[in-house]
Amino acid sequence: MGRWQPDSRGRLQEAALALYSEHGFDQTTAAQIAARAGLTERTFFRHFADKREVLFAGSALLQERIVAGVAGAPPTDGPLDAVGGGLAAAAVMLGEFRRDLSRQRHAVIAANPELRERELAKLADYAASVATVLHDRGVDEPQASLAAEAGMTVFRVAVERWSSGSDDRDLGAVMREAMAELRAVAGG
Amino acid sequence: MGRWQPDSRGRLQEAALALYSEHGFDQTTAAQIAARAGLTERTFFRHFADKREVLFAGSALLQERIVAGVAGAPPTDGPLDAVGGGLAAAAVMLGEFRRDLSRQRHAVIAANPELRERELAKLADYAASVATVLHDRGVDEPQASLAAEAGMTVFRVAVERWSSGSDDRDLGAVMREAMAELRAVAGG
Repeated sequence: MGRWQPDSRGRLQEAALALYSEHGFDQTTAAQIAARAGLTERTFFRHFADKREVLFAGSALLQERIVAGVAGAPPTDGPLDAVGGGLAAAAVMLGEFRRDLSRQRHAVIAANPELRERELAKLADYAASVATVLHDRGVDEPQASLAAEAGMTVFRVAVERWSSGSDDRDLGAVMREAMAELRAVAGG
Repeated sequence: MGRWQPDSRGRLQEAALALYSEHGFDQTTAAQIAARAGLTERTFFRHFADKREVLFAGSALLQERIVAGVAGAPPTDGPLDAVGGGLAAAAVMLGEFRRDLSRQRHAVIAANPELRERELAKLADYAASVATVLHDRGVDEPQASLAAEAGMTVFRVAVERWSSGSDDRDLGAVMREAMAELRAVAGG
């Protein structure tokens, strides 16, 4: 792990998102991404297994953060409040990602059915692991699955709003509001 | 469309689900399905484009029913009540499907990542079309997306419970209870 690493990785991500946006995901090669970033193809493959991985590289870490946030919520929190703790942890991590890159990522995934299916599968994995943590907190079924999946709905809607630029506030604030809206919709 | 049709189609579905369950989806061929149903491969392809289609054949019709149920809900219904109307329509349609076949279908899809991604994409499509109907009913964003996706969560959890046999009641009752549980989780 040399001094070059964080910077190369960030440059590769930025170059990849720009090329996917301009020419489409399927039309872009790893060699083109590396060239645009001013790096070699070998450097690309030191950072990413393939060009799809550029879009999903952070998801294992994100899942860990969400799960840790739910597990670390106060024991007195109800299931959806605990899930809100996981979303707050996710917002901190994702909020460090540039909003314009997040919007590009979103558009690239939305335009490609295979990437969209992949993204949905990741969200379903997050929900399944959140439900498992809720079971550990003593929440029964179906409440655990409902709270976990409702939380992922809040996550998705909030990230979409935040990255679209239709909401200027930081991601944590957008997530808290989306959670409040869900509660209002479900209570109304 | 001859007199043979409903029966052949049902026999092919039943044979396919049995073979997918016994040998796995990837290991089963259309020819084997046809043979098990006592029919020709040509008959199989008269009913289904491919072996995956056997698992997803009803989804366009199901989506129509859900959308019609939401659109037809009383104008005074809030967004989640309207979605509940769509789920009730779905429960009527799915409830006609044999519970043991539904369980087999569920297990086959859960065991195969590609089928699982496909199923998630179908549910996301249902949610998107429900959100569109809610917009037509005057519901704004993000309330429309939140209600639509929360509804699909209720749908998925209820179908899973119903087909697992962990709940003896009919699918409509299981869905109504899951909706009530979601409201309790979100209100608590």
